[in-house]
Amino acid sequence: MTRVAGRSRTTGELASALGAVCEGPDDRVISGVAPLDTAGSEQLSFCRGGRWTRALAGTRAGAVLVAPDLEVPDGVVALRVRDPRYAYAIAASLLVPLHWPKPERHVRAEVAPDARVADSCTIEPFVVIRPGAQVGEGTWLQAHAYVGRNARIGRDCRLMPGAVVMDGAVLGDRVWLHPGAVVGDDGFGHVIGPEGPIKVPQLGSVVLEDDVEVGANACVDRAALNETRIGRGTRLDNLVQVAHGVRIGAECLLAAFAGVAGGARLGDRVVMGGRTAVVDGIEVGDGAIFAGLASASRDVPPGAKIGGSPARSYARWLKEVAGLRALPAALKQLERMERRLEALEDGRDGS
Amino acid sequence: MTRVAGRSRTTGELASALGAVCEGPDDRVISGVAPLDTAGSEQLSFCRGGRWTRALAGTRAGAVLVAPDLEVPDGVVALRVRDPRYAYAIAASLLVPLHWPKPERHVRAEVAPDARVADSCTIEPFVVIRPGAQVGEGTWLQAHAYVGRNARIGRDCRLMPGAVVMDGAVLGDRVWLHPGAVVGDDGFGHVIGPEGPIKVPQLGSVVLEDDVEVGANACVDRAALNETRIGRGTRLDNLVQVAHGVRIGAECLLAAFAGVAGGARLGDRVVMGGRTAVVDGIEVGDGAIFAGLASASRDVPPGAKIGGSPARSYARWLKEVAGLRALPAALKQLERMERRLEALEDGRDGS
Amino acid sequence: MTRVAGRSRTTGELASALGAVCEGPDDRVISGVAPLDTAGSEQLSFCRGGRWTRALAGTRAGAVLVAPDLEVPDGVVALRVRDPRYAYAIAASLLVPLHWPKPERHVRAEVAPDARVADSCTIEPFVVIRPGAQVGEGTWLQAHAYVGRNARIGRDCRLMPGAVVMDGAVLGDRVWLHPGAVVGDDGFGHVIGPEGPIKVPQLGSVVLEDDVEVGANACVDRAALNETRIGRGTRLDNLVQVAHGVRIGAECLLAAFAGVAGGARLGDRVVMGGRTAVVDGIEVGDGAIFAGLASASRDVPPGAKIGGSPARSYARWLKEVAGLRALPAALKQLERMERRLEALEDGRDGS
Repeated sequence: MTRVAGRSRTTGELASALGAVCEGPDDRVISGVAPLDTAGSEQLSFCRGGRWTRALAGTRAGAVLVAPDLEVPDGVVALRVRDPRYAYAIAASLLVPLHWPKPERHVRAEVAPDARVADSCTIEPFVVIRPGAQVGEGTWLQAHAYVGRNARIGRDCRLMPGAVVMDGAVLGDRVWLHPGAVVGDDGFGHVIGPEGPIKVPQLGSVVLEDDVEVGANACVDRAALNETRIGRGTRLDNLVQVAHGVRIGAECLLAAFAGVAGGARLGDRVVMGGRTAVVDGIEVGDGAIFAGLASASRDVPPGAKIGGSPARSYARWLKEVAGLRALPAALKQLERMERRLEALEDGRDGS
Repeated sequence: MTRVAGRSRTTGELASALGAVCEGPDDRVISGVAPLDTAGSEQLSFCRGGRWTRALAGTRAGAVLVAPDLEVPDGVVALRVRDPRYAYAIAASLLVPLHWPKPERHVRAEVAPDARVADSCTIEPFVVIRPGAQVGEGTWLQAHAYVGRNARIGRDCRLMPGAVVMDGAVLGDRVWLHPGAVVGDDGFGHVIGPEGPIKVPQLGSVVLEDDVEVGANACVDRAALNETRIGRGTRLDNLVQVAHGVRIGAECLLAAFAGVAGGARLGDRVVMGGRTAVVDGIEVGDGAIFAGLASASRDVPPGAKIGGSPARSYARWLKEVAGLRALPAALKQLERMERRLEALEDGRDGS
Repeated sequence: MTRVAGRSRTTGELASALGAVCEGPDDRVISGVAPLDTAGSEQLSFCRGGRWTRALAGTRAGAVLVAPDLEVPDGVVALRVRDPRYAYAIAASLLVPLHWPKPERHVRAEVAPDARVADSCTIEPFVVIRPGAQVGEGTWLQAHAYVGRNARIGRDCRLMPGAVVMDGAVLGDRVWLHPGAVVGDDGFGHVIGPEGPIKVPQLGSVVLEDDVEVGANACVDRAALNETRIGRGTRLDNLVQVAHGVRIGAECLLAAFAGVAGGARLGDRVVMGGRTAVVDGIEVGDGAIFAGLASASRDVPPGAKIGGSPARSYARWLKEVAGLRALPAALKQLERMERRLEALEDGRDGS
């Protein structure tokens, strides 16, 4: 099933909601979304250009979001916008609203008597809410979610199945934890004594500001003594690790396997690609971009794009990668040149 | 305890079942498996040669699976086969059959009234099956497993403790999800708008074909709009990440921490070593092999073996690694040569 | 809240317990810990020197742990010790004792009738203990923890929410499993047959010795046939993977995303930084240190510090990284030198 049905809008209504120009009838009824190749007359699709343009030829979509300058075959109703992918995100939210369940407190959930849980929450089976915890209006706790002692969860949050919020953690509004995400667990702090490692008590807190999202099986540790904080709107992909005492700014994106080590600080709108890393204590400026696998071992200036490990500027890293490609041949060239040099030296000696 | 007991077979029966040649008595009773050093007279063991050959000298195993040409001490009953490790896998399955529980629907499981769950299933405590879900004959849902709305699970599957199948996900027959595995969660899709990241609704589906296995705490996301699909018999190790819209063929093996980014396609029988990566949108041909840590940032031809990051052919990568080893010395050689060159140039000028 | 309150001690009592020299009144009452900048007169803080020394100027902490030679502003009560961070760990444990709940067996836990669970255990809601399992005195099983058939768990252990101990796994005393940790799951063993991959039955065991800690969503697999073993006091961070048949010695520290492949052996006190790897079958000597991202593909001698991938000695790796930095310029230099060489050769020919 690759046609998703939802609420109806006319092409004209969509164009108006998206700030798009509608080329074609503005009274077509659109009630869902689908990819170009499977969409029918009631689905909206989008084309980001490039190699996807081919699929535009045969599409039966009711309307297609395209960039202002993209050529479109006859018969295709084009909704022209500057950023079709962005417009698609908005349109899909309009046409296929997120499923959100009715308020309910399932009899098989275990809610501590003194926990303050809003009546408008949805609490599914086998959820556990420990003493002193607070859960705000409209929040949805899916099956097996766990809310620790004195944890505070805001409004309209969603804890997906098996998500874990440890004692005292603080979540703002509209925070999503994906399945198996763990927020507020102890940081990895050990000192080596005469009888082996001793755990440094992890007594700090963790705060996820509004609109933060933590991916499946991702981990955000509490601080040892201060606070771990993730700023408004920042999104963490699956299997991301944020260590104790880290501060991440607003609107950052961290892709799968990204890791931020203890005490590091990230500014706003930082983008970390897949399997990237920030070493402990490092400072990363606003808007910095990590190419996949980049590992920052020193401070990163605002707006810098970095690559490689240890990371350097992306342009520099590309040059070094190219250099490495050329290296085996260059080493041979070096040997040949040394022999020629010797020949010249012999010649001079002999002259 | 490193002797595993199970059902009995004679050495002759085993040889026959495995296509092996039995050197020694064919009526010894074998009732389990064990390593060479701890096996007793009723256990089968195997020796893959090389440095493991030493352990063969002192073994008391009832029989040992070995390659056709491996020399064996007197008194050892050898079962000779082309691939001893493969034969061991078959033999161990015969001698120590998988434990599979009797059908049961535990009173403390929470099964939606309209879910269609076969009577032959085993449903352990605190399992949750949401409305509209289907679970096929003989499937075993271990404690705390979660099956989302309208998800469809085939026959003889096994969801281990805490495994999560999100809404609408489709699993074929004999699919295993290890503890904490998450299938069908939202992909990581965000567009950057004037007010920060906006989530692109993740409306597609995810299909795991027959005999797929997903490791502990591994994640397979649903597609944004189309389908994420993992082909028959493909096995994912622990902590693997498969992003939205990925298509993986049949009989692939992905080791721990392997990551496949959005929209990438893998053919059949692809082998990805530990901590390998495929960049988004890349195509990987049938039978390609990733050395550990290889990161493919462009299409990989069928059968290619690759290494490094960004990945190139394995042979090429080995040369570059060797080149890098030689580099510090080569840079010094270069400096020395430049001085010799200057000396020659000075000599010429002075002549 | 970044002041953590607990039990009271005087500065003199603390000095005595920590082997510290108290510079200032020894009768100040300290009842908690806090960072230098937020501590009040009843909190202990510590200063590790370097850039943290600035915060010492304005602190209002009741006492501060510092190194013997660190200069301290007037009015600050200094507790001088050789290793302030180590002393802090001890002091924090004294002042803020770990919360440990009273014994309880929650009515909503599912404990098999024949499981042997000590009366002094705390068993929270929705815990599952399968038949034949044993749980020792004082152990705390948090919500949704799972203990498989015939698993054996020692005294004073803690399984945090959703931690999974699979069948037959053995945990010593004071073992902690963080949320979502999985111990004793099948290893990733497959042989390729004519009809695709066949699972090698994973029949071995897993043993975590006393005082082992396994991080959130980390995985320790059972052995195929022998034993996976993690030595006394070893600590694994979040999202670590330990494959089947691995042996890790005592008092090791493995940071986030570290992976140890099948059958590898680590000695005692090995330190693996973030995202490091040990290839299958490799032996790593006592006290070896892996810089972040180091990937050992051959045996590592005791005490060696390694870096890079494939890993070499840390010093060597630093040289190669520096060489790579210099490479683009060196390649140009090589080209220029070749032209000069040609000029000389032409000169000689022409002479």
